[in-house]
Amino acid sequence: MSAKTIAIAGATGLVGNHMLHVLEQRGFPVKSLKPLASERSRGRTVTFKGETIPIEVLDENSFKGVDIALFSAGGGTSKKYAQCAVDAGCVVVDNSSAWRMDPAVPLVVPEVNGDAVKQHNGIIANPNCSTIQMVVVLKPLHDAATIRRVVVSTYQAVSGAGVKALDELNEQSKAILEGREFECKEFPHQIAFNCIPQIPQSNAFDANGYTTEELKMVNETKKIMGDESIRVTATTVRVAVHTGHSESVNVETTKKLTAAQAREILAAAPGIVVEDDPDTELYPLASRAAGKSDTFVGRIREDLSHDSALDMWVVSDNLLKGAAYNAVQIAELL
Amino acid sequence: MSAKTIAIAGATGLVGNHMLHVLEQRGFPVKSLKPLASERSRGRTVTFKGETIPIEVLDENSFKGVDIALFSAGGGTSKKYAQCAVDAGCVVVDNSSAWRMDPAVPLVVPEVNGDAVKQHNGIIANPNCSTIQMVVVLKPLHDAATIRRVVVSTYQAVSGAGVKALDELNEQSKAILEGREFECKEFPHQIAFNCIPQIPQSNAFDANGYTTEELKMVNETKKIMGDESIRVTATTVRVAVHTGHSESVNVETTKKLTAAQAREILAAAPGIVVEDDPDTELYPLASRAAGKSDTFVGRIREDLSHDSALDMWVVSDNLLKGAAYNAVQIAELL
Repeated sequence: MSAKTIAIAGATGLVGNHMLHVLEQRGFPVKSLKPLASERSRGRTVTFKGETIPIEVLDENSFKGVDIALFSAGGGTSKKYAQCAVDAGCVVVDNSSAWRMDPAVPLVVPEVNGDAVKQHNGIIANPNCSTIQMVVVLKPLHDAATIRRVVVSTYQAVSGAGVKALDELNEQSKAILEGREFECKEFPHQIAFNCIPQIPQSNAFDANGYTTEELKMVNETKKIMGDESIRVTATTVRVAVHTGHSESVNVETTKKLTAAQAREILAAAPGIVVEDDPDTELYPLASRAAGKSDTFVGRIREDLSHDSALDMWVVSDNLLKGAAYNAVQIAELL
Repeated sequence: MSAKTIAIAGATGLVGNHMLHVLEQRGFPVKSLKPLASERSRGRTVTFKGETIPIEVLDENSFKGVDIALFSAGGGTSKKYAQCAVDAGCVVVDNSSAWRMDPAVPLVVPEVNGDAVKQHNGIIANPNCSTIQMVVVLKPLHDAATIRRVVVSTYQAVSGAGVKALDELNEQSKAILEGREFECKEFPHQIAFNCIPQIPQSNAFDANGYTTEELKMVNETKKIMGDESIRVTATTVRVAVHTGHSESVNVETTKKLTAAQAREILAAAPGIVVEDDPDTELYPLASRAAGKSDTFVGRIREDLSHDSALDMWVVSDNLLKGAAYNAVQIAELL
């Protein structure tokens, strides 16, 4: 691949920052880097390969000469500026939900449907964090045994809600440990030492009672896996964890898989590390997955309640495989 | 009911202490209270109805003249002393797992199978905390629509593992917030800002990969509901919450129930508070359930992945309805 000019829209956010690190760590051939952010970040800088680069304020003219733009600045910004970037000859890898279900936009997890990148019309969507780690694990099982139905419950980290949300978790935790009062600003309820079954924090609910995060898991899974017959239900929950989403996933398959077969299939699949040894109390943990780019799976069991189903525990770093790392992997496919 | 002499075996533990409070709060007719504990608690006292009562060291002769003994001192103590208590003419309500699956011992949740108390032969078992709150909600749904299968993932509070475990959560939380090193003594891994998919903390795993906590939910549910045909799978997870177990419960029924019908059925059932209003971001929370004796249910939805299933979120105080409160309710039935 020849060296590319890369723009990062939302470079000062948690995911944008991780994108910079992942580009560096993976030795992506960057000819020049253009960190973009909103007016609020004017005057700030980022560090890339030891170089200090000033933030430029994102506008319609930001994308001239840019080859690939990684967007991670929210759905509104993506809706407003992605087309400008495409018109300037740029390919956009968008981390927001703005284009994900658009039939003209590929929704890509490289381990699952990397080929879909070829069908892009300028924009490629990066899926929702909780969906990415799940489909990485579902794909090899689907290929081997055809998945019918998935029941997933998530344990999602606070970093998925941004820097201010992390600050709130820490502030509330300190206050509770010291017996002080605290405020809820970012979350509708106490997040420290609690579980909130609502993601996102506002305007979450659809008419059917599902949250938008849950519907992302239901709908994006079908699109990425390229199979509308896979039925999914999800309950998505924010927990008092800084980074690393955990998921309890029940998978019903057409063909029965034993736990041993599933372990073997998953161990051979790309992007997956099987951590599954009850004797040594080894299973995936958010605390250990944070900072790593793989998806970890363990607690693999044959479901006692069903003739052909598996239970498993899937953990990944929501900012890396769930966002920045997957976006850079997509850029590498271009 | 005439006033009774009540012994509490394990009176200095978290659950034992809650039993004292519940007896007080519910105005249980206590003629005399006998707090029992191990040698380690010699010299300690408890307060009951404003009176300071010295702990007596538990031995074979502790139960003379006692009408009802509430045991909450671990399975070993129950195995060792429950029969002595029965031989002394006492009825034992046992909070450990020692007798729960014994066919001669009723396993009772008063809202579900209170009548089973009558069949006791001296010992009545109090179910596992995570099972109790689930069956309170499952029973009215089963009566209305016949449950086929349950897929449950839990978010269990640290107080379920005792006082030292709570101390460890607090110490680790402080250490992490202050950037200090910390130790894992009670839990096999970091519990602060983490999710551990293993309960209990040691000797957890069965040959089929399930933990004993998960198998309790599978097997106790069938016994309490009096229906071996109800299939259950569970993934039980310890989260960084002090008190209040949350559960994501997917319920497949023979007869289809709408979410509205389920809400109506649950609202009319004993021991349940329906908290389910997406518009005001109202759903059960551990932080709000702690200290209350009801079981809270919300996020009630018709499962998009199944023709006849519901998703819901069930929360209760694991020390109260999950232990002490349920035990005192059983004592009231005697």
